[in-house]
Amino acid sequence: MSGTLYGVGLGPGDPDLMTLRAHRLITSAPVIAYPAPDTGESFARAIAAGIIPRGAIEVPIVIPMRTTRFPAQAVYDAAAETLSGHLSAGRDVVVLCEGDPFFYGSFMYLFDRLAPRTRVEVVPGVTSLTTCAAVAGRPLCARNEVLTVIPGPLEEAALDAALSQGTAFAILKVGRHLSRLRDTLTRHNLAARAVYISHASLPHQTVLPLAEAPEQAPYFSMILVPGEDPYATT
Amino acid sequence: MSGTLYGVGLGPGDPDLMTLRAHRLITSAPVIAYPAPDTGESFARAIAAGIIPRGAIEVPIVIPMRTTRFPAQAVYDAAAETLSGHLSAGRDVVVLCEGDPFFYGSFMYLFDRLAPRTRVEVVPGVTSLTTCAAVAGRPLCARNEVLTVIPGPLEEAALDAALSQGTAFAILKVGRHLSRLRDTLTRHNLAARAVYISHASLPHQTVLPLAEAPEQAPYFSMILVPGEDPYATT
Repeated sequence: MSGTLYGVGLGPGDPDLMTLRAHRLITSAPVIAYPAPDTGESFARAIAAGIIPRGAIEVPIVIPMRTTRFPAQAVYDAAAETLSGHLSAGRDVVVLCEGDPFFYGSFMYLFDRLAPRTRVEVVPGVTSLTTCAAVAGRPLCARNEVLTVIPGPLEEAALDAALSQGTAFAILKVGRHLSRLRDTLTRHNLAARAVYISHASLPHQTVLPLAEAPEQAPYFSMILVPGEDPYATT
Repeated sequence: MSGTLYGVGLGPGDPDLMTLRAHRLITSAPVIAYPAPDTGESFARAIAAGIIPRGAIEVPIVIPMRTTRFPAQAVYDAAAETLSGHLSAGRDVVVLCEGDPFFYGSFMYLFDRLAPRTRVEVVPGVTSLTTCAAVAGRPLCARNEVLTVIPGPLEEAALDAALSQGTAFAILKVGRHLSRLRDTLTRHNLAARAVYISHASLPHQTVLPLAEAPEQAPYFSMILVPGEDPYATT
């Protein structure tokens, strides 16, 4: 194939937190693909909306938003075939990725299918992890502190194990798991210094002590438990 | 005070991985501060060198590069006083930060001193963590995988504990700890899928299987142990 596949991290949501390289690749892209829900707007596309060139071919990759299993293999197989057609025809393809492509991203499923047969470049992006720390004004980790990143849907036993050591913690994709996570953090004596953040960097961003988090947390929300003494210098 | 203090993440090294916001803040900054070694060039300043405006006041914050304790408190106290003078005079101050300001960064020491008395904005940046995954072509973590971030100088018992659970691991600031870390990862059966990366995104970037890593690893090097089966979709 003669086109290049770019997996481009867009950052957490504010278009201003896109990298210069992401900006340049998007503004000159002949083909732009992005994950999209079956109803509603693609968040990835929304971040880049202001700079998608007129005339670019757009390829939405529709992932049904269900909590039950869905035929993801088939969706990514079909998307890879579509993109493969553009790449074979010599057209570069930019895949828009929320945050960073290789940090809990779905780009890896396209990478898996296309990297063996085409040139691929992954452009890292600002993650929601450090954006949440920035907007909360809470340094995430320092010096020799271990930082553990935990997906919110993790089952209880694994969650307990992950929280039983380390210093700083970030729990991603909190959503409907909020109340269970709060109980678990309380049990581990970590709730007092925990912060709840949703939609970091976006106009409707929320930052609250965990105790004051809303009962209905959105999918794009996070709980940070920063290190205990971030300002110690020695 | 009337000026604003900006802690600006510059990304991992390639100036193209700076965010649009970082770029805009630096190009219009009246005062620019950055960490600098006592001999040699400031890495943070080098990343931004091409866009520092002519006429900007530069404030190097000289941190002696010794492995023994150094009077860091005094260095940051003095730097905070200098920056405070500019802020009081109504001048915005941009502090250049390698990577992200709140991810193992030294900006937090200035934040600690100045946030109580001035307006501060932290601009997150692309971390070396996801940049290493991108340049290695190895997805870092997916789905419900736990990612543990470990500073290389961590003592052996804490390192053993951190590696005893979880799925994906990133060991930062490898440097002179390489040989010990490799032995420990081998003992935990994690060495086979580990990747060694140094200077990610820079012209002299190196990506190697851990087994082939050079004996003399630079400070800016990392070992990634990506998740076991990054491409499984369900």
